[in-house]
Amino acid sequence: MTLKLYTLSAADTARPFSPHGWKAVLALHHKGLAFEEIQVPFTRISEIANGAAKTVPVLIDGETIVTDSFAIAEHLEAAYPDRPSLFGGEGGRAMARFIERWSQTATVAALVPIILKDVHSCVVPEDKAYFRQSREARFGMTLEEVVADRQAAAAAYPSKLDALRHTLKFQLFIGGEGPLFADHIVFGCLQWARLVRPQWLLPAGDPVNDWFERCLDLYGGVGRSAPAAA
Amino acid sequence: MTLKLYTLSAADTARPFSPHGWKAVLALHHKGLAFEEIQVPFTRISEIANGAAKTVPVLIDGETIVTDSFAIAEHLEAAYPDRPSLFGGEGGRAMARFIERWSQTATVAALVPIILKDVHSCVVPEDKAYFRQSREARFGMTLEEVVADRQAAAAAYPSKLDALRHTLKFQLFIGGEGPLFADHIVFGCLQWARLVRPQWLLPAGDPVNDWFERCLDLYGGVGRSAPAAA
Repeated sequence: MTLKLYTLSAADTARPFSPHGWKAVLALHHKGLAFEEIQVPFTRISEIANGAAKTVPVLIDGETIVTDSFAIAEHLEAAYPDRPSLFGGEGGRAMARFIERWSQTATVAALVPIILKDVHSCVVPEDKAYFRQSREARFGMTLEEVVADRQAAAAAYPSKLDALRHTLKFQLFIGGEGPLFADHIVFGCLQWARLVRPQWLLPAGDPVNDWFERCLDLYGGVGRSAPAAA
Repeated sequence: MTLKLYTLSAADTARPFSPHGWKAVLALHHKGLAFEEIQVPFTRISEIANGAAKTVPVLIDGETIVTDSFAIAEHLEAAYPDRPSLFGGEGGRAMARFIERWSQTATVAALVPIILKDVHSCVVPEDKAYFRQSREARFGMTLEEVVADRQAAAAAYPSKLDALRHTLKFQLFIGGEGPLFADHIVFGCLQWARLVRPQWLLPAGDPVNDWFERCLDLYGGVGRSAPAAA
Protein backbone atom coordinates (compact mmCIF):
# COMPACT_ATOMS: atom_id res chain seq x y z
CA MET A 1 0.00 0.00 0.00
CA THR A 2 1.36 3.39 -0.96
CA LEU A 3 2.29 5.71 1.88
CA LYS A 4 0.34 8.95 2.05
CA LEU A 5 1.94 12.19 3.18
CA TYR A 6 -0.26 15.18 3.94
CA THR A 7 1.57 18.48 3.62
CA LEU A 8 0.54 22.10 3.60
CA SER A 9 -1.14 23.69 0.58
CA ALA A 10 0.43 26.75 -1.01
CA ALA A 11 -1.26 29.29 -3.27
CA ASP A 12 1.31 28.29 -5.90
CA THR A 13 1.10 24.49 -5.88
CA ALA A 14 4.60 24.30 -7.39
CA ARG A 15 6.02 25.97 -4.28
CA PRO A 16 4.91 24.04 -1.18
CA PHE A 17 6.79 26.08 1.38
CA SER A 18 6.26 24.36 4.74
CA PRO A 19 9.68 23.62 6.26
CA HIS A 20 8.32 20.65 8.18
CA GLY A 21 6.74 19.21 5.05
CA TRP A 22 10.11 19.29 3.29
CA LYS A 23 11.74 17.42 6.16
CA ALA A 24 9.24 14.57 5.72
CA VAL A 25 9.44 14.62 1.91
CA LEU A 26 13.24 14.31 1.96
CA ALA A 27 13.11 11.62 4.65
CA LEU A 28 10.77 9.51 2.48
CA HIS A 29 13.00 9.99 -0.56
CA HIS A 30 16.08 9.14 1.53
CA LYS A 31 14.41 5.84 2.42
CA GLY A 32 13.55 5.30 -1.24
CA LEU A 33 9.86 4.90 -0.43
CA ALA A 34 7.07 5.66 -2.91
CA PHE A 35 4.42 7.96 -1.48
CA GLU A 36 1.46 10.05 -2.49
CA GLU A 37 1.65 13.70 -1.36
CA ILE A 38 -1.65 15.39 -0.60
CA GLN A 39 -1.63 19.10 0.07
CA VAL A 40 -4.20 20.50 2.50
CA PRO A 41 -4.83 24.04 3.72
CA PHE A 42 -4.23 24.93 7.38
CA THR A 43 -7.98 25.26 7.78
CA ARG A 44 -8.68 21.71 6.65
CA ILE A 45 -6.03 19.84 8.66
CA SER A 46 -8.84 18.70 10.98
CA GLU A 47 -10.30 16.65 8.13
CA ILE A 48 -7.20 14.42 7.86
CA ALA A 49 -7.71 10.91 9.24
CA ASN A 50 -10.83 11.85 11.19
CA GLY A 51 -9.20 14.69 13.10
CA ALA A 52 -6.08 12.77 14.16
CA ALA A 53 -3.79 15.74 13.55
CA LYS A 54 -3.53 19.39 14.48
CA THR A 55 -0.54 20.05 12.23
CA VAL A 56 0.98 18.79 9.00
CA PRO A 57 2.95 16.85 7.88
CA VAL A 58 0.96 13.71 8.63
CA LEU A 59 2.13 10.32 7.39
CA ILE A 60 -0.33 7.49 6.87
CA ASP A 61 1.50 4.16 6.70
CA GLY A 62 -1.11 1.41 6.63
CA GLU A 63 -2.82 1.52 10.01
CA THR A 64 -0.23 3.86 11.46
CA ILE A 65 -0.82 7.62 11.58
CA VAL A 66 2.24 9.69 12.43
CA THR A 67 2.15 13.43 13.06
CA ASP A 68 5.23 15.66 13.48
CA SER A 69 8.16 15.52 11.10
CA PHE A 70 10.66 14.17 13.64
CA ALA A 71 8.27 11.39 14.65
CA ILE A 72 7.82 10.59 10.96
CA ALA A 73 11.59 10.16 10.57
CA GLU A 74 11.70 7.97 13.67
CA HIS A 75 8.81 5.88 12.34
CA LEU A 76 10.49 5.42 8.96
CA GLU A 77 13.77 4.44 10.63
CA ALA A 78 12.04 1.82 12.79
CA ALA A 79 9.64 0.51 10.12
CA TYR A 80 12.16 0.37 7.26
CA PRO A 81 15.45 -0.58 8.91
CA ASP A 82 16.85 -2.16 5.73
CA ARG A 83 16.62 1.12 3.81
CA PRO A 84 19.33 3.82 4.11
CA SER A 85 19.48 5.11 7.66
CA LEU A 86 18.12 8.56 8.52
CA PHE A 87 20.15 8.84 11.71
CA GLY A 88 23.30 6.75 11.31
CA GLY A 89 22.79 5.02 14.64
CA GLU A 90 21.33 5.77 18.05
CA GLY A 91 23.76 8.58 18.80
CA GLY A 92 22.77 10.21 15.55
CA ARG A 93 19.09 9.90 16.42
CA ALA A 94 19.66 11.66 19.74
CA MET A 95 21.84 14.39 18.24
CA ALA A 96 19.39 14.95 15.37
CA ARG A 97 16.99 16.09 18.08
CA PHE A 98 19.55 18.64 19.25
CA ILE A 99 19.96 19.87 15.69
CA GLU A 100 16.18 20.09 15.26
CA ARG A 101 15.94 22.17 18.43
CA TRP A 102 18.84 24.34 17.19
CA SER A 103 17.08 24.75 13.86
CA GLN A 104 13.87 25.82 15.58
CA THR A 105 15.34 28.09 18.26
CA ALA A 106 18.18 29.66 16.28
CA THR A 107 17.30 29.66 12.61
CA VAL A 108 13.50 29.38 12.26
CA ALA A 109 13.03 31.92 15.05
CA ALA A 110 15.39 34.27 13.20
CA LEU A 111 13.50 33.82 9.92
CA VAL A 112 10.10 34.74 11.31
CA PRO A 113 10.79 38.50 11.57
CA ILE A 114 12.14 38.39 8.02
CA ILE A 115 9.64 36.29 6.08
CA LEU A 116 6.39 36.04 8.03
CA LYS A 117 4.59 38.51 5.74
CA ASP A 118 5.96 36.67 2.68
CA VAL A 119 4.57 33.44 4.10
CA HIS A 120 1.16 35.10 4.46
CA SER A 121 1.35 36.05 0.80
CA CYS A 122 1.98 32.41 -0.13
CA VAL A 123 -0.80 30.65 1.80
CA VAL A 124 -3.95 29.66 -0.09
CA PRO A 125 -6.73 32.27 -0.12
CA GLU A 126 -8.93 30.32 2.28
CA ASP A 127 -6.09 30.24 4.87
CA LYS A 128 -5.21 33.92 4.83
CA ALA A 129 -7.54 35.07 7.60
CA TYR A 130 -6.67 32.08 9.82
CA PHE A 131 -2.95 32.58 9.27
CA ARG A 132 -3.08 36.27 10.11
CA GLN A 133 -5.25 35.78 13.18
CA SER A 134 -3.29 32.83 14.63
CA ARG A 135 0.15 34.38 14.07
CA GLU A 136 -0.88 37.81 15.32
CA ALA A 137 -2.21 36.13 18.48
CA ARG A 138 1.04 34.13 18.87
CA PHE A 139 3.33 37.13 18.46
CA GLY A 140 1.10 39.73 20.08
CA MET A 141 1.37 42.13 17.17
CA THR A 142 0.32 42.48 13.53
CA LEU A 143 2.19 40.60 10.80
CA GLU A 144 3.41 43.95 9.56
CA GLU A 145 4.82 44.78 13.00
CA VAL A 146 6.56 41.39 13.24
CA VAL A 147 8.53 42.14 10.07
CA ALA A 148 8.98 45.88 10.63
CA ASP A 149 12.76 45.51 11.07
CA ARG A 150 13.16 42.82 8.43
CA GLN A 151 16.09 44.49 6.67
CA ALA A 152 18.16 44.48 9.86
CA ALA A 153 17.01 40.94 10.67
CA ALA A 154 17.99 39.78 7.19
CA ALA A 155 21.42 41.36 7.53
CA ALA A 156 21.94 39.52 10.83
CA TYR A 157 20.63 36.19 9.51
CA PRO A 158 23.82 34.65 8.06
CA SER A 159 25.49 34.67 11.49
CA LYS A 160 22.70 32.43 12.83
CA LEU A 161 24.13 29.63 10.70
CA ASP A 162 27.67 29.84 12.10
CA ALA A 163 27.53 26.37 13.64
CA LEU A 164 26.62 24.86 10.26
CA ARG A 165 29.12 27.02 8.37
CA HIS A 166 31.98 25.89 10.61
CA THR A 167 30.85 22.24 10.48
CA LEU A 168 31.19 22.37 6.71
CA LYS A 169 34.93 22.96 7.11
CA PHE A 170 35.10 19.34 8.25
CA GLN A 171 32.49 17.48 6.21
CA LEU A 172 30.10 17.76 3.26
CA PHE A 173 26.89 17.26 5.22
CA ILE A 174 25.75 17.51 8.82
CA GLY A 175 25.43 13.73 8.55
CA GLY A 176 29.06 13.39 7.44
CA GLU A 177 30.06 12.41 3.91
CA GLY A 178 26.40 11.90 3.00
CA PRO A 179 23.11 13.45 4.15
CA LEU A 180 21.05 12.32 7.12
CA PHE A 181 17.77 13.57 8.57
CA ALA A 182 19.70 16.32 10.37
CA ASP A 183 20.45 17.79 6.93
CA HIS A 184 16.78 17.51 5.94
CA ILE A 185 15.84 19.46 9.07
CA VAL A 186 18.05 22.44 8.33
CA PHE A 187 17.37 22.20 4.59
CA GLY A 188 13.64 22.51 5.29
CA CYS A 189 14.27 25.75 7.13
CA LEU A 190 16.23 27.34 4.27
CA GLN A 191 13.92 25.89 1.61
CA TRP A 192 11.07 27.70 3.39
CA ALA A 193 12.94 30.98 2.90
CA ARG A 194 13.84 30.09 -0.70
CA LEU A 195 10.21 29.46 -1.65
CA VAL A 196 8.59 32.52 -0.09
CA ARG A 197 11.21 35.30 -0.27
CA PRO A 198 12.57 36.45 -3.64
CA GLN A 199 15.81 37.77 -2.11
CA TRP A 200 18.15 34.96 -0.99
CA LEU A 201 19.46 35.50 2.52
CA LEU A 202 23.07 34.30 2.29
CA PRO A 203 25.93 36.14 0.57
CA ALA A 204 27.68 34.77 -2.49
CA GLY A 205 30.65 32.63 -1.52
CA ASP A 206 29.09 31.42 1.71
CA PRO A 207 29.90 27.68 2.13
CA VAL A 208 26.35 27.19 3.41
CA ASN A 209 25.19 27.91 -0.16
CA ASP A 210 27.29 25.01 -1.45
CA TRP A 211 25.76 22.67 1.14
CA PHE A 212 22.26 23.93 0.29
CA GLU A 213 22.87 23.33 -3.42
CA ARG A 214 24.00 19.78 -2.60
CA CYS A 215 20.75 19.30 -0.68
CA LEU A 216 18.68 20.68 -3.58
CA ASP A 217 20.31 18.04 -5.79
CA LEU A 218 19.51 15.09 -3.51
CA TYR A 219 17.19 12.27 -4.57
CA GLY A 220 16.96 13.38 -8.18
CA GLY A 221 16.65 17.05 -7.34
CA VAL A 222 13.33 16.88 -5.48
CA GLY A 223 14.10 20.07 -3.58
CA ARG A 224 15.15 21.93 -6.71
CA SER A 225 11.95 20.88 -8.51
CA ALA A 226 10.15 23.63 -6.58
CA PRO A 227 11.21 26.93 -8.18
CA ALA A 228 12.58 29.68 -5.95
CA ALA A 229 10.30 32.61 -5.17
CA ALA A 230 10.47 35.28 -7.86
CA MET B 1 51.23 1.13 28.99
CA THR B 2 49.30 3.89 30.72
CA LEU B 3 47.90 6.63 28.54
CA LYS B 4 49.20 10.13 29.20
CA LEU B 5 47.04 13.20 28.88
CA TYR B 6 48.62 16.62 28.94
CA THR B 7 46.22 19.35 30.03
CA LEU B 8 46.56 22.98 30.96
CA SER B 9 47.97 24.04 34.33
CA ALA B 10 45.91 26.27 36.58
CA ALA B 11 47.15 28.43 39.45
CA ASP B 12 44.88 26.37 41.68
CA THR B 13 45.79 22.79 40.74
CA ALA B 14 42.43 21.59 42.06
CA ARG B 15 40.66 23.68 39.43
CA PRO B 16 42.03 22.82 35.99
CA PHE B 17 39.74 25.05 33.96
CA SER B 18 40.50 24.34 30.31
CA PRO B 19 37.22 23.37 28.56
CA HIS B 20 39.07 21.30 26.00
CA GLY B 21 40.97 19.43 28.70
CA TRP B 22 37.68 18.46 30.35
CA LYS B 23 36.35 17.08 27.08
CA ALA B 24 39.35 14.74 26.84
CA VAL B 25 39.23 13.81 30.54
CA LEU B 26 35.55 12.81 30.33
CA ALA B 27 36.11 10.94 27.06
CA LEU B 28 38.85 8.86 28.68
CA HIS B 29 36.66 8.13 31.70
CA HIS B 30 33.73 7.26 29.39
CA LYS B 31 35.95 4.65 27.75
CA GLY B 32 37.00 3.39 31.17
CA LEU B 33 40.68 3.90 30.38
CA ALA B 34 43.33 4.52 33.03
CA PHE B 35 45.46 7.55 32.29
CA GLU B 36 48.00 9.84 33.86
CA GLU B 37 47.14 13.55 33.66
CA ILE B 38 50.05 15.96 33.42
CA GLN B 39 49.32 19.66 33.70
CA VAL B 40 51.53 22.05 31.75
CA PRO B 41 51.48 25.84 31.46
CA PHE B 42 50.64 27.49 28.13
CA THR B 43 54.23 28.61 27.89
CA ARG B 44 55.62 25.06 28.15
CA ILE B 45 53.31 23.30 25.66
CA SER B 46 56.20 23.33 23.18
CA GLU B 47 58.10 20.94 25.48
CA ILE B 48 55.46 18.17 25.12
CA ALA B 49 56.59 15.26 22.94
CA ASN B 50 59.44 17.23 21.35
CA GLY B 51 57.26 20.08 20.15
CA ALA B 52 54.52 17.95 18.58
CA ALA B 53 51.74 20.18 19.86
CA LYS B 54 50.79 23.84 19.86
CA THR B 55 47.78 23.37 22.15
CA VAL B 56 46.60 21.08 24.91
CA PRO B 57 45.06 18.58 25.49
CA VAL B 58 47.56 16.16 24.00
CA LEU B 59 47.08 12.41 24.33
CA ILE B 60 50.04 10.05 24.20
CA ASP B 61 48.84 6.52 23.50
CA GLY B 62 51.91 4.35 22.95
CA GLU B 63 53.51 5.60 19.74
CA THR B 64 50.51 7.72 18.85
CA ILE B 65 50.39 11.44 19.68
CA VAL B 66 46.97 13.06 19.30
CA THR B 67 46.35 16.77 19.62
CA ASP B 68 42.89 18.44 19.68
CA SER B 69 40.09 17.16 21.91
CA PHE B 70 37.83 16.05 19.04
CA ALA B 71 40.68 14.11 17.43
CA ILE B 72 41.35 12.51 20.82
CA ALA B 73 37.74 11.32 20.99
CA GLU B 74 37.96 9.97 17.44
CA HIS B 75 41.22 8.20 18.28
CA LEU B 76 39.74 6.61 21.40
CA GLU B 77 36.66 5.49 19.47
CA ALA B 78 38.79 3.86 16.77
CA ALA B 79 41.45 2.40 19.08
CA TYR B 80 39.07 1.08 21.76
CA PRO B 81 35.96 -0.03 19.85
CA ASP B 82 34.96 -2.58 22.50
CA ARG B 83 34.62 0.11 25.18
CA PRO B 84 31.46 2.24 25.50
CA SER B 85 30.99 4.33 22.37
CA LEU B 86 31.67 8.07 22.45
CA PHE B 87 29.55 8.76 19.37
CA GLY B 88 26.84 6.09 19.14
CA GLY B 89 27.59 5.37 15.49
CA GLU B 90 28.83 7.19 12.43
CA GLY B 91 25.89 9.61 12.35
CA GLY B 92 26.63 10.55 15.93
CA ARG B 93 30.29 11.14 15.10
CA ALA B 94 29.32 13.53 12.32
CA MET B 95 26.71 15.34 14.41
CA ALA B 96 29.08 15.61 17.37
CA ARG B 97 31.17 17.81 15.09
CA PHE B 98 28.15 20.06 14.53
CA ILE B 99 27.61 20.25 18.29
CA GLU B 100 31.30 21.06 18.82
CA ARG B 101 31.05 23.87 16.29
CA TRP B 102 27.85 25.09 17.96
CA SER B 103 29.58 24.98 21.33
CA GLN B 104 32.49 27.03 20.00
CA THR B 105 30.58 29.57 17.94
CA ALA B 106 27.55 30.06 20.17
CA THR B 107 28.48 29.30 23.74
CA VAL B 108 32.29 29.65 24.11
CA ALA B 109 32.21 32.85 22.06
CA ALA B 110 29.50 34.19 24.37
CA LEU B 111 31.51 33.28 27.48
CA VAL B 112 34.65 35.13 26.43
CA PRO B 113 33.29 38.66 27.10
CA ILE B 114 32.05 37.41 30.48
CA ILE B 115 34.96 35.38 31.90
CA LEU B 116 38.14 36.25 30.03
CA LYS B 117 39.49 38.35 32.90
CA ASP B 118 38.57 35.59 35.36
CA VAL B 119 40.51 33.12 33.22
CA HIS B 120 43.52 35.43 33.35
CA SER B 121 43.25 35.38 37.15
CA CYS B 122 43.33 31.58 37.12
CA VAL B 123 46.33 30.89 34.88
CA VAL B 124 49.66 30.06 36.53
CA PRO B 125 51.93 33.05 37.26
CA GLU B 126 54.38 32.20 34.50
CA ASP B 127 51.53 32.24 31.93
CA LYS B 128 49.99 35.58 32.84
CA ALA B 129 52.02 37.79 30.51
CA TYR B 130 51.64 35.33 27.60
CA PHE B 131 47.91 34.99 28.17
CA ARG B 132 47.34 38.74 28.27
CA GLN B 133 49.49 39.44 25.24
CA SER B 134 48.08 36.63 23.06
CA ARG B 135 44.43 37.33 23.92
CA GLU B 136 44.78 41.08 23.57
CA ALA B 137 46.33 40.54 20.13
CA ARG B 138 43.51 38.14 19.17
CA PHE B 139 40.70 40.44 20.27
CA GLY B 140 42.38 43.74 19.38
CA MET B 141 41.73 45.25 22.81
CA THR B 142 42.77 44.85 26.43
CA LEU B 143 41.36 42.05 28.58
CA GLU B 144 39.57 44.71 30.59
CA GLU B 145 37.94 46.09 27.42
CA VAL B 146 36.86 42.59 26.30
CA VAL B 147 34.85 42.16 29.51
CA ALA B 148 33.72 45.77 29.90
CA ASP B 149 30.07 44.83 29.28
CA ARG B 150 30.24 41.55 31.17
CA GLN B 151 27.10 42.17 33.21
CA ALA B 152 24.97 42.55 30.08
CA ALA B 153 26.73 39.60 28.43
CA ALA B 154 26.07 37.45 31.51
CA ALA B 155 22.39 38.40 31.48
CA ALA B 156 22.14 37.37 27.82
CA TYR B 157 24.07 34.14 28.30
CA PRO B 158 21.27 31.71 29.25
CA SER B 159 19.55 32.27 25.89
CA LYS B 160 22.67 31.01 24.09
CA LEU B 161 21.84 27.54 25.43
CA ASP B 162 18.29 27.43 24.04
CA ALA B 163 19.03 24.54 21.69
CA LEU B 164 20.28 22.43 24.61
CA ARG B 165 17.47 23.56 26.91
CA HIS B 166 14.82 22.51 24.40
CA THR B 167 16.59 19.21 23.65
CA LEU B 168 16.33 18.34 27.33
CA LYS B 169 12.53 18.31 27.00
CA PHE B 170 13.02 15.12 24.99
CA GLN B 171 15.97 13.32 26.56
CA LEU B 172 18.34 13.30 29.55
CA PHE B 173 21.54 13.89 27.59
CA ILE B 174 22.52 15.25 24.19
CA GLY B 175 23.53 11.65 23.52
CA GLY B 176 20.05 10.39 24.42
CA GLU B 177 19.35 8.39 27.58
CA GLY B 178 23.05 8.34 28.41
CA PRO B 179 25.96 10.70 27.76
CA LEU B 180 28.14 10.75 24.66
CA PHE B 181 31.09 12.90 23.65
CA ALA B 182 28.64 15.61 22.55
CA ASP B 183 27.72 16.02 26.22
CA HIS B 184 31.40 16.18 27.20
CA ILE B 185 31.88 18.98 24.68
CA VAL B 186 29.19 21.23 26.09
CA PHE B 187 29.98 20.20 29.66
CA GLY B 188 33.57 21.37 29.14
CA CYS B 189 32.31 24.79 28.16
CA LEU B 190 30.16 25.23 31.27
CA GLN B 191 32.76 23.61 33.53
CA TRP B 192 35.18 26.31 32.33
CA ALA B 193 32.75 28.95 33.57
CA ARG B 194 32.12 27.04 36.83
CA LEU B 195 35.82 26.88 37.66
CA VAL B 196 36.81 30.47 36.96
CA ARG B 197 33.73 32.59 37.77
CA PRO B 198 32.26 32.60 41.28
CA GLN B 199 28.80 33.63 40.04
CA TRP B 200 27.02 30.80 38.21
CA LEU B 201 25.52 31.94 34.91
CA LEU B 202 22.20 30.08 34.77
CA PRO B 203 19.10 30.87 36.81
CA ALA B 204 17.68 28.49 39.40
CA GLY B 205 15.14 26.15 37.84
CA ASP B 206 16.83 26.09 34.44
CA PRO B 207 16.71 22.49 33.13
CA VAL B 208 20.25 23.00 31.83
CA ASN B 209 21.36 23.00 35.49
CA ASP B 210 19.86 19.52 35.96
CA TRP B 211 21.74 18.25 32.91
CA PHE B 212 24.96 19.88 34.13
CA GLU B 213 24.56 18.27 37.56
CA ARG B 214 24.08 14.90 35.86
CA CYS B 215 27.32 15.52 33.96
CA LEU B 216 29.16 16.50 37.16
CA ASP B 217 28.12 13.12 38.59
CA LEU B 218 29.38 11.03 35.67
CA TYR B 219 32.21 8.51 36.05
CA GLY B 220 32.30 8.71 39.81
CA GLY B 221 31.94 12.47 39.93
CA VAL B 222 35.17 13.38 38.18
CA GLY B 223 33.77 16.76 37.11
CA ARG B 224 32.47 17.54 40.58
CA SER B 225 35.86 16.70 42.13
CA ALA B 226 37.06 20.12 41.00
CA PRO B 227 35.45 22.66 43.34
CA ALA B 228 33.56 25.58 41.83
CA ALA B 229 35.24 28.98 41.86
CA ALA B 230 34.65 30.83 45.11
